[in-house]
Amino acid sequence: MGRVVVDISISLDGYVAGPNPSLDDPLGRGGEGLHEWVFGLRAWREPHGRSGGETGLVNDLVEEGIRATGATVMGRKMFSGGEGPWEDDPKANGWWGDDPPFHHPVFVLTHHAREPLTKDGGTTFTFVTDGVESALEQARAAAGDKDVLISGGAEAIQQFLRAGVVDELRIHLVPVVLGAGARLLDGIGPGDLELETDSVIESTGVTHLRFRVRSAG
Amino acid sequence: MGRVVVDISISLDGYVAGPNPSLDDPLGRGGEGLHEWVFGLRAWREPHGRSGGETGLVNDLVEEGIRATGATVMGRKMFSGGEGPWEDDPKANGWWGDDPPFHHPVFVLTHHAREPLTKDGGTTFTFVTDGVESALEQARAAAGDKDVLISGGAEAIQQFLRAGVVDELRIHLVPVVLGAGARLLDGIGPGDLELETDSVIESTGVTHLRFRVRSAG
Repeated sequence: MGRVVVDISISLDGYVAGPNPSLDDPLGRGGEGLHEWVFGLRAWREPHGRSGGETGLVNDLVEEGIRATGATVMGRKMFSGGEGPWEDDPKANGWWGDDPPFHHPVFVLTHHAREPLTKDGGTTFTFVTDGVESALEQARAAAGDKDVLISGGAEAIQQFLRAGVVDELRIHLVPVVLGAGARLLDGIGPGDLELETDSVIESTGVTHLRFRVRSAG
Repeated sequence: MGRVVVDISISLDGYVAGPNPSLDDPLGRGGEGLHEWVFGLRAWREPHGRSGGETGLVNDLVEEGIRATGATVMGRKMFSGGEGPWEDDPKANGWWGDDPPFHHPVFVLTHHAREPLTKDGGTTFTFVTDGVESALEQARAAAGDKDVLISGGAEAIQQFLRAGVVDELRIHLVPVVLGAGARLLDGIGPGDLELETDSVIESTGVTHLRFRVRSAG
């Protein structure tokens, strides 16, 4: 069975997104900057249908992570930025257009039931209304021997950390200060998360940390 | 002129001390664990009057930092854990006994004036009641060509960061979660701190990050 992996970029003050997210600025003020390091990598450009891009150690790690992932779980806010009934949500079909970059099954945590949404290129969004354990069970079944990636946002990650089901935490620490927004570890206490450092790599200013989760939940 | 350096250990969730600090537990619950990495180093043992200890790259960096430091600035809470008039403070002479490990002038930010306190081994504590700029001016004069170290706690560091006078930020990122306590970057916004990564070293699970402060204040 694959592992359950959290992979997320954070600011030095611990935010995964900045304040005041909107349709124009889904990651909040300064939040987009947390992801700049990845946009130049071949590993990011290829699944987004673009050629070229940087190679090297960090690109290898990201490509390896993508290859190892069989299913993704995300929160409703990451999927569409919205909340409440789907018919009122301007991004009810997600941020990623007709050919999303996942190319595997994606499970979206929501309070609002709907039919699965099948996109081009192997991405199907399944909407899970009965909680993180159910989402994880479905994602594990879909992933087979591969890993399940918990990709965000902060609230979804916190739910999985508190449930004690995460095997590995990958943090990309970006040397910026956001000052406000959604903090990765809000509401997580010493009893929720014990970590062992697995590897640390720095590239173009960003520090890529991998932790094994020793015991949890 | 030397530089102004902040050097501090933090948890993965950004705390420099845990909740409920007390005389028995000055760094709060879990806070002591942030400093375990340093206790085994020769660089720590020597100024504390102990022999032996680990050598190597991280020890070299810490020793180099100590040699380069000509004066230290700290907040009242770091000095004694107390607040209010000195006569009511059980640690009014500091935590470190007759021979503190600094061996250079130390400037303590406080609202309560008192005469300087001279200890063995070259450590004199001078109490500064007229703010961070004054403390820094006095510390620079005492340090000569050497660096001024801002050693804590969080509130004192935040005052210096907001004043725009810090040249280098050294963070020792310890893979623990404290969940509550004093957070290093509370109240610091994007305009207060712009960073460039200088170096990143991992050793025995702790990640040692050095940032140049690009512009501030």
